[in-house]
Amino acid sequence: VIQALALSGIPEVRPGDEPAELIATALTGPERSALRGRGAVLVVAHKLISKAEGRVRRLAEVAPSPRARELAERLGGKDPRHVQVVLDETREVRRAEHGVLISQTHHGFVCANAGVDASNASEDDMVIMLPLDPDGSARRLRARLAPRLGATPAVIITDSFGRAWRHGQCDVAIGCAGLRPLEDWRGGTDRRGRELRATLIAIADEIAAAADLARTKDGGQPAVLVTGVERVTCSEDGPGVAPLLRGEDTDLFR
Amino acid sequence: VIQALALSGIPEVRPGDEPAELIATALTGPERSALRGRGAVLVVAHKLISKAEGRVRRLAEVAPSPRARELAERLGGKDPRHVQVVLDETREVRRAEHGVLISQTHHGFVCANAGVDASNASEDDMVIMLPLDPDGSARRLRARLAPRLGATPAVIITDSFGRAWRHGQCDVAIGCAGLRPLEDWRGGTDRRGRELRATLIAIADEIAAAADLARTKDGGQPAVLVTGVERVTCSEDGPGVAPLLRGEDTDLFR
Repeated sequence: VIQALALSGIPEVRPGDEPAELIATALTGPERSALRGRGAVLVVAHKLISKAEGRVRRLAEVAPSPRARELAERLGGKDPRHVQVVLDETREVRRAEHGVLISQTHHGFVCANAGVDASNASEDDMVIMLPLDPDGSARRLRARLAPRLGATPAVIITDSFGRAWRHGQCDVAIGCAGLRPLEDWRGGTDRRGRELRATLIAIADEIAAAADLARTKDGGQPAVLVTGVERVTCSEDGPGVAPLLRGEDTDLFR
Repeated sequence: VIQALALSGIPEVRPGDEPAELIATALTGPERSALRGRGAVLVVAHKLISKAEGRVRRLAEVAPSPRARELAERLGGKDPRHVQVVLDETREVRRAEHGVLISQTHHGFVCANAGVDASNASEDDMVIMLPLDPDGSARRLRARLAPRLGATPAVIITDSFGRAWRHGQCDVAIGCAGLRPLEDWRGGTDRRGRELRATLIAIADEIAAAADLARTKDGGQPAVLVTGVERVTCSEDGPGVAPLLRGEDTDLFR
């Protein structure tokens, strides 16, 4: 059985706050017990991490470049300062059309606005960026939870990404520690013993999606406890999300 | 709390079998009770439905066209008969490179091989296609479960789709009944009262992903019971998956 339970009582996060402390404080007794089991994952919306790490900017302090102004205009009147922050987070602009700016971030993620977002920011002219190194943030959170919980759950850091050919967003993993993000059934067999050729499951993304079901977007519930995924958790930190990212040679969005 | 529980004991499906009967028989007492609650969804892998509906073909009976032979060769030695079945299910070929064939199906789904798959087929030269009308299949299953269960759970029919810019597959909804597939927070507000502009959640896909976590690919568990999604279930059948499909004007994969 898979379970997803949103944690209540995590306060508004400020730069310099310790996410492990905020989360450990919010965990009740039964939740702590559940986190000690194998197959437990703590799924955390990146905004909690980004705010704690100071990955925010005030638009009043951003000077847009001519390119940012041009893109903002082309996209139907976006705030050029917001576009400038997106460009600062971008390795390569992939699309700028239909009012959306699709970037490949410096981490290698392909997503709208390089993950830069204003909703759930602490102040009105503030935008939130993705953590600089989400796998590192996940490993750090995991290590700092251990002494507080007497357990080392897996950690996934998430963001909501759109899809090229489907409407709506799904939460996906942008950082992880303590689990293998891809479950590889290639070389395995189906019930009739036939090889499962193309079966490579993005299980970290599926866990992120399951966790998102447990919370509401306005509920102030940035952390969700998912249990029952013993198949993919591991005691070491593991490879992070790198196995989920397509290299340029296999990226079908080019 | 969200829960996902794979049902055991569903036998190998044959053409003409009644999915509602197979599923109702496999449900134990506590599972039946859970299905009666609001927020219960029965998530079914499309292969169960496709086999029952006879949506299978034997490769021995397929004569590949010159175009299928050419594509099979270009893609590195695929079976041209398999490619022919894919083309028969395809409205438009979107990519044919890196050994993969990405189609838009007649339903409008963009996916590898138009959803045609050989794994978990009943016989060695058999391939399985997507249901002709997965929303209709979901509505039919829902209606036929009702008298057997004394309840009308929501139904989602799933397949595993890859992503353009990320490795691995996630289960997504290809048909549904009894729930709204997109949860629209646009016009809603975040905790600080700021408008949540781009927040449109593909919740049917997130439910499909959560369900996939509960089963193994070789376990013969085509049906998963998900509970706790009262937010999106509804008494009427609802719009099916159409709201998840991008029109040509907003499809970023062109």
